[in-house]
Amino acid sequence: MRKGLPKREEGFSSWYTQIVNKADLADYGPVKGTMVIKPYGFQLWENIKESFDKMIKETGHVNAYFPLFIPKSFLAREAEHVEGFAKECAIVTHTRLKSDEKNGVVVDPESKLEEELIVRPTSETIIWSMYKKWIQSYRDLPILINQWANVVRWEMRTRLFLRTSEFLWQEGHTAHATKEEAEKETLDILGLYQKLAEEYLAIPVITGIKTEAEKFAGAERTYCIEAMMGDKKALQAGTSHDLGQNFAKAFDVKFQTKDNREELVWATSWGVSTRLVGAIILTHGDDKGLRLPPKIAPIQLVIIPIYKTIEQEQLIKDYIQDLVEDWKNHEIRVHEDWTDNTPGFKFNNWEMKGVPLRLEVGPRDIEKNNVVLARRDSGEKVFLSKVEAIKKVPELLINIQENLFSQALQFREKNTHVINKYDELKTIIKQGGFVRCGWDGKASTEAKIKEETKATIRCIPLDEKPKDLKCIYSTSPAKHEVIFAKAY
Amino acid sequence: MRKGLPKREEGFSSWYTQIVNKADLADYGPVKGTMVIKPYGFQLWENIKESFDKMIKETGHVNAYFPLFIPKSFLAREAEHVEGFAKECAIVTHTRLKSDEKNGVVVDPESKLEEELIVRPTSETIIWSMYKKWIQSYRDLPILINQWANVVRWEMRTRLFLRTSEFLWQEGHTAHATKEEAEKETLDILGLYQKLAEEYLAIPVITGIKTEAEKFAGAERTYCIEAMMGDKKALQAGTSHDLGQNFAKAFDVKFQTKDNREELVWATSWGVSTRLVGAIILTHGDDKGLRLPPKIAPIQLVIIPIYKTIEQEQLIKDYIQDLVEDWKNHEIRVHEDWTDNTPGFKFNNWEMKGVPLRLEVGPRDIEKNNVVLARRDSGEKVFLSKVEAIKKVPELLINIQENLFSQALQFREKNTHVINKYDELKTIIKQGGFVRCGWDGKASTEAKIKEETKATIRCIPLDEKPKDLKCIYSTSPAKHEVIFAKAY
Repeated sequence: MRKGLPKREEGFSSWYTQIVNKADLADYGPVKGTMVIKPYGFQLWENIKESFDKMIKETGHVNAYFPLFIPKSFLAREAEHVEGFAKECAIVTHTRLKSDEKNGVVVDPESKLEEELIVRPTSETIIWSMYKKWIQSYRDLPILINQWANVVRWEMRTRLFLRTSEFLWQEGHTAHATKEEAEKETLDILGLYQKLAEEYLAIPVITGIKTEAEKFAGAERTYCIEAMMGDKKALQAGTSHDLGQNFAKAFDVKFQTKDNREELVWATSWGVSTRLVGAIILTHGDDKGLRLPPKIAPIQLVIIPIYKTIEQEQLIKDYIQDLVEDWKNHEIRVHEDWTDNTPGFKFNNWEMKGVPLRLEVGPRDIEKNNVVLARRDSGEKVFLSKVEAIKKVPELLINIQENLFSQALQFREKNTHVINKYDELKTIIKQGGFVRCGWDGKASTEAKIKEETKATIRCIPLDEKPKDLKCIYSTSPAKHEVIFAKAY
Repeated sequence: MRKGLPKREEGFSSWYTQIVNKADLADYGPVKGTMVIKPYGFQLWENIKESFDKMIKETGHVNAYFPLFIPKSFLAREAEHVEGFAKECAIVTHTRLKSDEKNGVVVDPESKLEEELIVRPTSETIIWSMYKKWIQSYRDLPILINQWANVVRWEMRTRLFLRTSEFLWQEGHTAHATKEEAEKETLDILGLYQKLAEEYLAIPVITGIKTEAEKFAGAERTYCIEAMMGDKKALQAGTSHDLGQNFAKAFDVKFQTKDNREELVWATSWGVSTRLVGAIILTHGDDKGLRLPPKIAPIQLVIIPIYKTIEQEQLIKDYIQDLVEDWKNHEIRVHEDWTDNTPGFKFNNWEMKGVPLRLEVGPRDIEKNNVVLARRDSGEKVFLSKVEAIKKVPELLINIQENLFSQALQFREKNTHVINKYDELKTIIKQGGFVRCGWDGKASTEAKIKEETKATIRCIPLDEKPKDLKCIYSTSPAKHEVIFAKAY
């Protein structure tokens, strides 16, 4: 039997790591900083991916695939961009191994590349080098391309799903004829990210804009969705960048307008990653393990049969057959656990894995023509007839989805503090929570607060009301209302 | 207007390259040997992927994700394996760039890795290093894991989809308690590959086993599906390997059997790649461009409205609305082409892109309450009433799928020669085609035939009948009946 989970309050970080392990979500890879996504964790990612893929396709986006390797010179073309990624990239320099009598298998020095290749940390540069070939006229615009891919940003401080050298993500890269259209795209995608987070992952998010200090290397404006995790820290869950004409400039991508002028193309890029799996754990997990939102749970309902004899086993199999069939026909993801573990072990195991609903059934339930349904979110148990159970399961799944969202929302609201004193900010940041307050718009103020409290401006929320506010630090008139918090 | 395609007979290779370009399937990447898969080509790959993913999930397989980077020492553990991949791998040696006043952005020599990392050419080694952690007892077996991933094998002779440095594929890696179970898995997957090729891609394949000279580096036995392309050359379209205990040995992966013995684990691996897109082009393409099997075509039916005035345009929109709705409800992938190109341009363009069915509709058709349907496979046109068209489209799609398969099968049969004279083999190989004949089983014979004719043994077909055959080269009694051909 597996050992229990540490309580969240005793050590959030170790609690997190152990959930990832005990719920069979991921494992450490052999190379420092890398992650193996195990089947259960990967199914979760596949469900997230499928949900978002559908949204972007419905809004006219298409998928494509661009190469993994970026010539070093491409990365260097956009000054801020290379600055942002230079310190954490994997560099390919050779293309052949050879046998060496003394040292075994070694890199063949003769296979050295003329120009080194960078394993993509993100694909703006390689994609805009292609757009240069593909875009001539306004008729070629817009291009609304997305790719699902792996990217690499060298990291030594690994936290599975949250911070790993290689991760999986989607990266959208769009090209537009006007500034307005690009800005609209950036915001439309932000809306889809919010929808994905709130309606599918049951994670309430604040939509906002990043400060200069926090924006993407190469962007004009970075929009983001920010969420509060169970330890009251913030997690950036997705970003959408208005890139202006920066990459068009770097790669000389111009188009002929309708009235025959030549103009630089306008760009956006946007991404969410396997980090979202980490966000789900950190938002919904409890002392028993994971709690998964039904819409993206690999298994929505697990059936635990309780029996001692082969006859009882058969009895249960016959008894639940039509139930399971009916649920499967309604596309409910059902799993029956017929392993020879004890019911107690199974309860713990599936609670750890966060399955939203558990059905228990044994000979006594069959006598009464009943089943027992237990909710993972609340622990609540209901005793139902078979007929009732068929109808009740889809209802409960909707209900659990909503309940996880509203629990998370309540938690965030309880721990978000609208204040105007810097001392209060310091206390709250120390205790954990979001601070909503005025900021004078100065990078120096932002830097000092970060230095003194480790809190950063997570975003300028889209619904900011800076009027009449004062900066919490300098007490000068506020330029923006912002959210401060410590972040992952 | 785009220039026409060269005829296949005038130059198959240039015909292929131009289809890839003109049908918007792919483009060359900036780094030699790399490929950009464009949206239309990628949608084709997504449909193939989805079809196969469903098959493997239905047979109990699950997806996971393993890291891109393999420590050099891992690759070196299995002698044949490293031998097979050493000469064509991308090697990561550094992890940081820095600015240099003289040379701009350069690799920071201080970021040199202690151990070089190989970008995965295939993932046996990294996966078996994890199975070492995950497998202790027979209860942990079987493991039936697949991953969809990018892999890199350094190539300078690029042919889009057929041979590129980076390509996309699935790689299954399973672990079993017995030799028999591993062998069964290898063959079960071979069966799924055949099903994928024949029922979805409409490509008839020969299932067989590779000779020692042609098998996968590290395998005990490599099974394959081999197909005949339109130029009568062979293309290996998928391989399934029985790895025996080779990787378990290399990574010391043992398990406790039911009767408490310790044994090495048995392994398989298997893969199909974006090469299948190339196979579709080479099998079904004609002088007008691509012909796509309906089951995996991104667009199954394209609607070309024929009009001159805005009134006519509106008339057509109203007229086809219920048709389109009905087809979409039946999950037929319909596209309406309302661009301002001429109908002639549109006809050519969608023929180039291989859309199985074209619907033409203009004011005169509306007067007669008709539409025109044109088949891409045969060029045949049918005039139908609207009501008939609704029913006819799904029927025609099935029909086209079957017709493409039977055309390809007839072509292969016509160009497969069962012979027993070496002179004949030489002539046939020169003219193009498959030779089915006896082989004495000697590597030296195989090598000589390859040297003299450039033909290789594509496989020993599973339905071989070597009894009473003589080797086509040595005239000694044949050990196997084999297929010789030139190959991609």
